[in-house]
Amino acid sequence: MALSTELTELLGLRHPIVLAPMGGAAGGALAAAVSRAGGLGLVGGAYGDRAWLERELPIVAEGTDQPWGVGFLNWAIEGGAVEQALEFHPAAVMLSFGDPSPFADRIRRSGAVLIVQVTDLDEAERALDVGADVIVAQGTESGGHGARRGRSTLPFVPLVVDLAAPVPVLAAGGIADGRGVAAALALGAAGALLGTRFQATTEALVDRSVSEALVEGRGQDTERNSVLDIARGASWPLEKYSARTLGHPYLDRWRGREAELAGDSRARQDYQDDVARGVIPPLPVWAGEGVDLITDVPSAADLVTELAAQAEDALLRAGRLRPNDRS
Amino acid sequence: MALSTELTELLGLRHPIVLAPMGGAAGGALAAAVSRAGGLGLVGGAYGDRAWLERELPIVAEGTDQPWGVGFLNWAIEGGAVEQALEFHPAAVMLSFGDPSPFADRIRRSGAVLIVQVTDLDEAERALDVGADVIVAQGTESGGHGARRGRSTLPFVPLVVDLAAPVPVLAAGGIADGRGVAAALALGAAGALLGTRFQATTEALVDRSVSEALVEGRGQDTERNSVLDIARGASWPLEKYSARTLGHPYLDRWRGREAELAGDSRARQDYQDDVARGVIPPLPVWAGEGVDLITDVPSAADLVTELAAQAEDALLRAGRLRPNDRS
Repeated sequence: MALSTELTELLGLRHPIVLAPMGGAAGGALAAAVSRAGGLGLVGGAYGDRAWLERELPIVAEGTDQPWGVGFLNWAIEGGAVEQALEFHPAAVMLSFGDPSPFADRIRRSGAVLIVQVTDLDEAERALDVGADVIVAQGTESGGHGARRGRSTLPFVPLVVDLAAPVPVLAAGGIADGRGVAAALALGAAGALLGTRFQATTEALVDRSVSEALVEGRGQDTERNSVLDIARGASWPLEKYSARTLGHPYLDRWRGREAELAGDSRARQDYQDDVARGVIPPLPVWAGEGVDLITDVPSAADLVTELAAQAEDALLRAGRLRPNDRS
Repeated sequence: MALSTELTELLGLRHPIVLAPMGGAAGGALAAAVSRAGGLGLVGGAYGDRAWLERELPIVAEGTDQPWGVGFLNWAIEGGAVEQALEFHPAAVMLSFGDPSPFADRIRRSGAVLIVQVTDLDEAERALDVGADVIVAQGTESGGHGARRGRSTLPFVPLVVDLAAPVPVLAAGGIADGRGVAAALALGAAGALLGTRFQATTEALVDRSVSEALVEGRGQDTERNSVLDIARGASWPLEKYSARTLGHPYLDRWRGREAELAGDSRARQDYQDDVARGVIPPLPVWAGEGVDLITDVPSAADLVTELAAQAEDALLRAGRLRPNDRS
């Protein structure tokens, strides 16, 4: 048996489980493994680095005969990257963070399902305006980048569901086991999108130290911040987006002094020097609040199968009904 | 039919739905109405104001023959208030915010079910140490007071469930309709505790302007802050707790300048003067992020019945299974 939703029906999936298109980490092998296991694997196209896509897209396209997709950052997409991806005939393309309208039409014309990620109700309305086939409602619990002033997943998802109906909605943020997937469905979502949990799989394109940090990490140690984007010289629009990370020495050093750090080129050079000397890793460990629930580094296939089974169990257990002799 | 959980079995309830013991707002009539409808009504004992309890406890005790309870703030309980409540034989007593140990034993000795609310895993461990029969895991989405640096409900609840098993856990924070109740159960909770939603009922002890503000209010306009506690001279321990409220002129005026406000007795007098002149209401409107889902002011009985029916529907819908011909 398997859980049936508008998402599984729309895309012909076995499970309502989607791999978040994490830039760099969600490569072709991970996306293919998720799709083969019955979820929807999304390659993390991020800024649209042509060389990276040229390497990873063939891997997913040749790695599965099941539906797969690719995701991009609207504010960052480099010229031609969307077209490059469409040549591989993805079943879905996901657009996140910023204005999706420059890309929406050509994605839909290609026949791909257009997935748009939103962090507030205004963005959800704009996503519907550009013809999104699926909307991802991202809560502030999520790992990595998201709205600086975000909404929490549990109260946010039902709002987007009501606004978007009949367009299906996926829940994202704080979901790291099958109970979270079940909760997403209970809230009215048609599926769940998981990022952090999939970073701790054997196929993720992350250093082993990252998987280990996720297994060890605690949600209470994650923190939404801009310090690390500033320190590493990232080009994310800081007024709108921050990123949830595990603890980091530069975060402790500069928390609350973001403007000072931004104006201090010496401090940013120190960060680069520390990376070069191996004192700190090149990237922060992006992690959502659900990281406590990650206790192993399975294959993506085993993870998808386990998430689906846990979700079914959770819903069956939660839905225990008894004859009500007092009503 | 009705949803059966460890909570409904422990207390003999019809529905796994609990009224948050909101100080002032959750009086005897509201608690009795919730309990009569099959949930668990908890009177908002707050600081333990003896005169208020003397008025409200007989109302609930005489208002229902179903289980009901009362809640207190650990850091604030005035002498004798717990004993005063126990004389009315509540089925449950809930302790929130601060050290429950001075009160836990005498509550348990009375035969009442001891419910302890927690905002992080350390507090959850302490709650188990003092013998809590039920733990409430409160997320930062919740209205009113909570941890300054809180956890989000969706990822926090399963952690507490795993830690506390077999002690049942209730989810609190961001739950304002039956889908949220269903999500709580899917996460492994034995029930849901709702505050903001019950403020907008006909029995809540709030000014009509508060109910109206909740019907109009949007989650994105709620904000966890200390400004209003400082401005109104509340005695809450500010280093540990803040409160989520709807927007307020003093919040706009003093956001980010809390220390300055705390040292400015003139500004605090201005607040009192504005209250006296009717420019601002005496209290801020405490509201959780689920406030968007509140669109009416029903009776508490109708609300409990509707929440339960919605939760059952949500779980049945989410749990739709199909034969899996591809697995």
